[in-house]
Amino acid sequence: MTEHHRAGPLFTDLYELTMAASYFAHQVFDTATFSLYIRDVYATRNFFVAAGLDQVLDELAAFRFSDPDISYLHSTGRFSKHFLDYLRQLRFTGDVYAMPEGMVFFANEPVMEVTAPIVEAQLIETFVLNTIGFQTMIASKAARCFHAAEGRPLIDFSLRRTQGQDAGIKVARSTFIAGFAATSNVLAGKIYGIPISGTMAHSYVSAFDNELDAFFAYADTFPDHSIFLIDTYDSVEGARHAAAVAKEMQKKGHTLIGVRLDSGDMAGPSREVRKIFDDAGLYDVKIFASSGFDEFKIAKVISEGALIDAFGVGTKVGVSADAPFVDVVYKMVRFKGRDVRKLSPGKVTLAGEKQVFRKSDQNGRYSEDIIGQRDEIIAEGKPLLEKVMGNGKILRSHPQLQMLQEKFKENFAALDDRYKSIQDHNAYPVKLSRRIQDLQKR
Amino acid sequence: MTEHHRAGPLFTDLYELTMAASYFAHQVFDTATFSLYIRDVYATRNFFVAAGLDQVLDELAAFRFSDPDISYLHSTGRFSKHFLDYLRQLRFTGDVYAMPEGMVFFANEPVMEVTAPIVEAQLIETFVLNTIGFQTMIASKAARCFHAAEGRPLIDFSLRRTQGQDAGIKVARSTFIAGFAATSNVLAGKIYGIPISGTMAHSYVSAFDNELDAFFAYADTFPDHSIFLIDTYDSVEGARHAAAVAKEMQKKGHTLIGVRLDSGDMAGPSREVRKIFDDAGLYDVKIFASSGFDEFKIAKVISEGALIDAFGVGTKVGVSADAPFVDVVYKMVRFKGRDVRKLSPGKVTLAGEKQVFRKSDQNGRYSEDIIGQRDEIIAEGKPLLEKVMGNGKILRSHPQLQMLQEKFKENFAALDDRYKSIQDHNAYPVKLSRRIQDLQKR
Repeated sequence: MTEHHRAGPLFTDLYELTMAASYFAHQVFDTATFSLYIRDVYATRNFFVAAGLDQVLDELAAFRFSDPDISYLHSTGRFSKHFLDYLRQLRFTGDVYAMPEGMVFFANEPVMEVTAPIVEAQLIETFVLNTIGFQTMIASKAARCFHAAEGRPLIDFSLRRTQGQDAGIKVARSTFIAGFAATSNVLAGKIYGIPISGTMAHSYVSAFDNELDAFFAYADTFPDHSIFLIDTYDSVEGARHAAAVAKEMQKKGHTLIGVRLDSGDMAGPSREVRKIFDDAGLYDVKIFASSGFDEFKIAKVISEGALIDAFGVGTKVGVSADAPFVDVVYKMVRFKGRDVRKLSPGKVTLAGEKQVFRKSDQNGRYSEDIIGQRDEIIAEGKPLLEKVMGNGKILRSHPQLQMLQEKFKENFAALDDRYKSIQDHNAYPVKLSRRIQDLQKR
Repeated sequence: MTEHHRAGPLFTDLYELTMAASYFAHQVFDTATFSLYIRDVYATRNFFVAAGLDQVLDELAAFRFSDPDISYLHSTGRFSKHFLDYLRQLRFTGDVYAMPEGMVFFANEPVMEVTAPIVEAQLIETFVLNTIGFQTMIASKAARCFHAAEGRPLIDFSLRRTQGQDAGIKVARSTFIAGFAATSNVLAGKIYGIPISGTMAHSYVSAFDNELDAFFAYADTFPDHSIFLIDTYDSVEGARHAAAVAKEMQKKGHTLIGVRLDSGDMAGPSREVRKIFDDAGLYDVKIFASSGFDEFKIAKVISEGALIDAFGVGTKVGVSADAPFVDVVYKMVRFKGRDVRKLSPGKVTLAGEKQVFRKSDQNGRYSEDIIGQRDEIIAEGKPLLEKVMGNGKILRSHPQLQMLQEKFKENFAALDDRYKSIQDHNAYPVKLSRRIQDLQKR
């Protein structure tokens, strides 16, 4: 696995295929535009961070039904030979406009728009929603942690409890985009080149006769990459053992990177541990903390004065535990050359092909977004959606992951702190242009 | 993709590999037993349904580092050539005891125990936790829906909002084990042979000049597989259109399977819709409902008298929204021929290789479970953990998925209703045998 694992065109809901069959039977091949956005139903997030685009583009560029796919569909007895022959030669030939990964955006703003013959635009719906929705949700959760950690490095430790294999890989990637420093996930390191990081488990310490033996053994194997887990028995005693081993390592010209605390309370123990290392002159030994961290717990232990240098962040971020899904939708906004919208109680879709324009104040701080028609020009509004696919071809090479992280950090820095609050719901101003408002009335 | 997608041995946390390197360097090759169980930290579930075993066994049987895996590890600069050569030839040679998929079990009961040389047992930890934890969590959530639906068929509609690709596939499989009738997920249909089901989207109805045209067009393409979505404009009017088309279908010898309601309130509209079909003599047309269903909403609409024949169940089950992770752990319980346990506040691991014995009353209803030592015999206690792998070889062919569903239904029927409550936390009696209690004191 050296890149995204392909889902293939059967990664779809059956109704996408039955609708396609019916469109085909009635020769409905007209062009449609679908708009993908997150509805602000739950008010759990002030902002989102776009992620998942490159995988979507790779999948669309490679879109084709294999012979086994066609055989399976044939075996269901629902589809005509005519339609299956049509599917066999079907490719994705549409255009895609999208916000780049790492971009901060807000509820109800289109993060992607797809224009294609209706069958193609419809068949990819399930995959696109799944991919953009999940990865954006994780990047958004991770960005909240990045904010709460106030500059301390964060390491993704979630792999053992993510929702399946693919989630594990994509959590590593999405959290890295949103400012994480590293992951414990070795496969994600291999696939994406994300820095990998790790310490030791309690079982390792238990496997030796005593803690000191375990630390010496580990230091012997990793003289320059050691982080000791010090709370298998007692964290203060563990810190003393770690300091003793660190002193021996120093004599051989090596340095202990740090120690890890993995228990409930952090503030008191971290200060005791810090004092032990400082008293021993081991000022550079870092204190890592893990165990149930998310943005709330990070903010809490920092406010309590815990002396933590870096956080291992696991399950709660890996599944976005406080908001484990987003209400991401993919709605038809234009068909057969006509702008369309669906109205249902409390759920309005904005008709027409759109663009999001972002305005900044004189300090470069984001002041407001304006949703307009795609061909509008809004004075001092920077358009956020870029054309990334034309006629089914990807129009640019994929950015390096490191560059996506830099893009995130840059645009996150321009977001006012009040919208980064992990406690309060503050709505960033998102307005509609006059033209898009007029269009909705027609 | 014709079977489980292989994760490979790099699907692991870095520390598993660094600990392995250190064990290797110090020639620690002793046998260890690890026990996998769910801790009852959150009290959100009265019971669990085991799932994920076959994938674990396939992965362990195929466990090997590829050349690119070794190259990547080499590139990290952390591992000796000696160790990498050792990894290159490493296979999983251990024994696995596990509960079969579809088995109902409870917090703190071992659902799997792995005995292997410590390096092997440790390297698979992350994968095993991820796989059993996630799939068991989803099967458990689905079983709650199965209970709430009181016999009405359930269809998995979650694919667009599961946490990634693999989750989508595994949710279809896990919900099917726990009694679901079908899935909308075409890929899961292909891989696992799960029945697939689907209707149409609002966009399909919108793509035609009017709703009646849309229904006629769909019926024309799927004369025997049509389910109409009737609430794009107005569900009562939609039902009348559907009834009109159903009458025309009848004249040609075809039958409308049903209609789907996808809006907020279900009780009132479902009764109106039922009356329209009954008045038209269309007693066999079924009413499907979707939109935000989970066990709570299913129970609610049934209690309100909604006339729903089947439920499309999506996002909230696909991510187990009310409890999106389980505290599943994998703890060393025996090493170098000695039973071991780790004690930390509120978290006790039972030392020793174990078995779970289930007792039933004279009506075949489960009365209590007893956790004992693996070689114990408990009168009238049926052992639940089976030896499924010996020396790295799978000891039986994988059961058919349909059989796992039957196993689930059979043992779920033997569980008293009070433990199936979706509202109340009722703890099923799980006791410790005298021998396992004595062992803990040593």
